Order: sequence, then C-alpha cells, then structure tokens
Amino acid sequence: MSVYDKLKALQISLPEPITPAAAFVMTVRTGNLLFVSGHIARRDGKPWTGQLGAQLGTQEGKHAARNAAIDVLATMHHALGDLNKVRRIVKVLNLVNSSSRFMEHHLVANGASELLQEVFGEKGKHARSAIGVAQLPLGACFEIELVAEVAD
Amino acid sequence: MSVYDKLKALQISLPEPITPAAAFVMTVRTGNLLFVSGHIARRDGKPWTGQLGAQLGTQEGKHAARNAAIDVLATMHHALGDLNKVRRIVKVLNLVNSSSRFMEHHLVANGASELLQEVFGEKGKHARSAIGVAQLPLGACFEIELVAEVAD
Amino acid sequence: MSVYDKLKALQISLPEPITPAAAFVMTVRTGNLLFVSGHIARRDGKPWTGQLGAQLGTQEGKHAARNAAIDVLATMHHALGDLNKVRRIVKVLNLVNSSSRFMEHHLVANGASELLQEVFGEKGKHARSAIGVAQLPLGACFEIELVAEVAD
Repeated sequence: MSVYDKLKALQISLPEPITPAAAFVMTVRTGNLLFVSGHIARRDGKPWTGQLGAQLGTQEGKHAARNAAIDVLATMHHALGDLNKVRRIVKVLNLVNSSSRFMEHHLVANGASELLQEVFGEKGKHARSAIGVAQLPLGACFEIELVAEVAD
Repeated sequence: MSVYDKLKALQISLPEPITPAAAFVMTVRTGNLLFVSGHIARRDGKPWTGQLGAQLGTQEGKHAARNAAIDVLATMHHALGDLNKVRRIVKVLNLVNSSSRFMEHHLVANGASELLQEVFGEKGKHARSAIGVAQLPLGACFEIELVAEVAD
Repeated sequence: MSVYDKLKALQISLPEPITPAAAFVMTVRTGNLLFVSGHIARRDGKPWTGQLGAQLGTQEGKHAARNAAIDVLATMHHALGDLNKVRRIVKVLNLVNSSSRFMEHHLVANGASELLQEVFGEKGKHARSAIGVAQLPLGACFEIELVAEVAD
C-alpha cells in the first residue's frame, strides 16, 4: 500500500504545509538525509498550548504529538513531492513542555511514534529521544523534529 | 587493543541491551551513520531518578552519565555485532534533569565523554552538547543520545 | 562575495576559537557533514548568563544568539581552514535558558538564523528547532549546536 493509501485508510488528510515565520526553512536535504525543522503541536490550526503535568494530561499530550507528526508529514510531502520517497524515518526528537513533576514524556512521544509507524510501516520504525523542556515557542505543549532517509 | 580488551581492562561488563518499551527502536543505521535512541541513566537496572541541583550533586550525575554511556555501548554492541566497527563517535547530546540553579551540566556530561574516550581512544573524541532539561522520562536524572560513524 | 568579505562588510571579526574544557572536541566531520558542538553565548569573552523571561528580554537573547553563532563561525573557520567550504548550513538547534513563562524562543533564535543567512546567503538557510530549557552550562542564557554540509 502506498503511503497515501495508508493516510486515506487512517482518515488523515494532510494540512497545508507550515511556512516558517523566520529566517529558516522547514527542511534541508543533504545527501540522502532530510532534516526537518521543529514543528510545534497545533489544534485547529493554532498552537496547542499548555504544559504537561499542569494544564494537560498524558492523553492530550499524546494527541498533540500525533497532530505535530501529521504536520511533519505535510511538510515532507511538500518538500519531497511524494512521501513514498521516504526510505526510513531515522531519528525523532520529541520535546514535551513539561512541569518538573511530569514523567511520562515517552508516552506522549508515542503519539508521534505510533503515527509514523502506522503510515510508513517498517520504514517508520525510528530511533528517538523524549525529553521534558521548560517551555516551547508560543507556549506550545509539544514540538517534534526528525531526520529521514530519502530515495535518490 | 580491541574495544572489548579495553572494556575488560576498565572492568566494565556490558549489560543486556535495553528493549524499547514503545513504538521505536534503539538504533537506526543510514549509510555509515548509526543513530542511537535516548538512553536514560539506570542504577541497579532501574531508572536513576532525581534532579541535579535538588536531590543529586554533580558527582552522582557524572556517575549516572557514565552508566548511561555503558548502556549505549551495550545497545551498539547488540546493533553492530562488534564494537570495533565504530569508526568515530560523532555527536553526543547530554540531557541533564536540572533545577534552575544547577549550572554544571558540562561536568555531568564528562561522565559519558570520558567513558567513551577511555573505551574508543581517539575514535571516541566527539562533538557534544550538554543542557539542563525540566524533567526526563520516569524521572531519570540523565539521558544520552548519540550519532556514530560505523564501518561498512 | 566570499564569506570573509561578507564578514568584513558586516564588521564582524572572528574571535579566537573556543577550546573545549572537557573530554570532547568542538567539531567532528563524517563524510560531508560537520557536526559542531554546543556553543554557549558569551559577552566580552565570558558566559552571557541569565534566563529569558526572568533577567533577560527577547532582544538581549537575540543578541546573545547572534554572538554564539559568531563563535560557531570561528570554530568552523578553525576546523575547515576556509569558511567558503561550507556548502550548506543544514540544521541548527537553539537552546534558550527559559523561565516557564517565556514563549519567544523562536525570536531569540532568529539572532543566530539571521546572522547565518547574512554571512552564507542561500547556503545559510537551515532547518532548525528552538526550545526553552531549564538551565545551561555556567548559567548561559543561550546555546547553539549545528550540522553543516561541507565541500570535499
């Protein structure tokens, strides 16, 4: 099944890709590696704000992580022209806006990890880290960046 | 001296490699690069919890960083079959669970950096960053991820 | 215009490269990728301390980010011998020492992003992330690390 068939089966429609508001770009390719900029989680097109362990719980965080990963797919589709060019999701960094008491960053990150695996199958199995940060741009509750290997 | 001779000389026995509890894998190789997932520090097989600048001091943090680096070696041994295939430790990210008053993240990170250099010699000299994060999965005091260059 | 002409036009003189105080190196090259270690922001040769959202405001943070990026240029010049060998700034990680109320990490990061683009032009357009961390080594307000693609 192509990546787009899987997205359809999952009832995911890719949003418009995000435009960087500042002096950077959303992706840079070097060799067969595609580096994707940090994407903050959005809900209804706006930053999904709040801190895990304070205003938000693990399930909401996981949902936010899934949303952010879908935005990354939109960015990659825009950059590559075809998501089937993805040979492997290599490495994901999951940044959770976290109070000092919250300790389930790995469960939040699963929202993104599971989505990537549903969409890309074996190619979606990635190395990753999940960490709790003090705050994120615009007060977002989650941010994700990744590196993918892409076809020639 | 082979890497395993050095480990023996340092009286380090590699633990069983960690199994990811979630939808990710511990390493992904792309070309000659091996991306290693974040490993939290453990003590006696359990997460080494606590915050630097609160419950833990710099020396304990450094010890935790060394432990986490040894777990990374176990993961790399499992992934590569032979640690002598490592041509270079390229880049290490050191994440220190840190109160807002703690400022010795670089000294904590040395626990991992020195271990890598003891084991790999010149090949173990890496670029790195050390930062203080708000919290880590399961309350761990330290997490490390790295990128290595490996032989064909 | 060469990179050095641009630096001259911007009235930027590169400082002496920083020497790592610990068991690591400032850059590692693997293939055509140069991984640059985290550089904390400095002012007058000393760590630029303070937290965004507490002691420091966005404009000061942006200035600190610019300073740190200039230090990175000095490091890259030292490592490569010639900054014109840079083919692309690939990926930048911007770490902002941030109170839990500060939400303008992206604006702080622009201090580094804009400098890189001024100096390298199109080659300076990079992927990036900006995040708020709990604390940084020596109390620095900002830290930057990056990956660049370099010529053979």
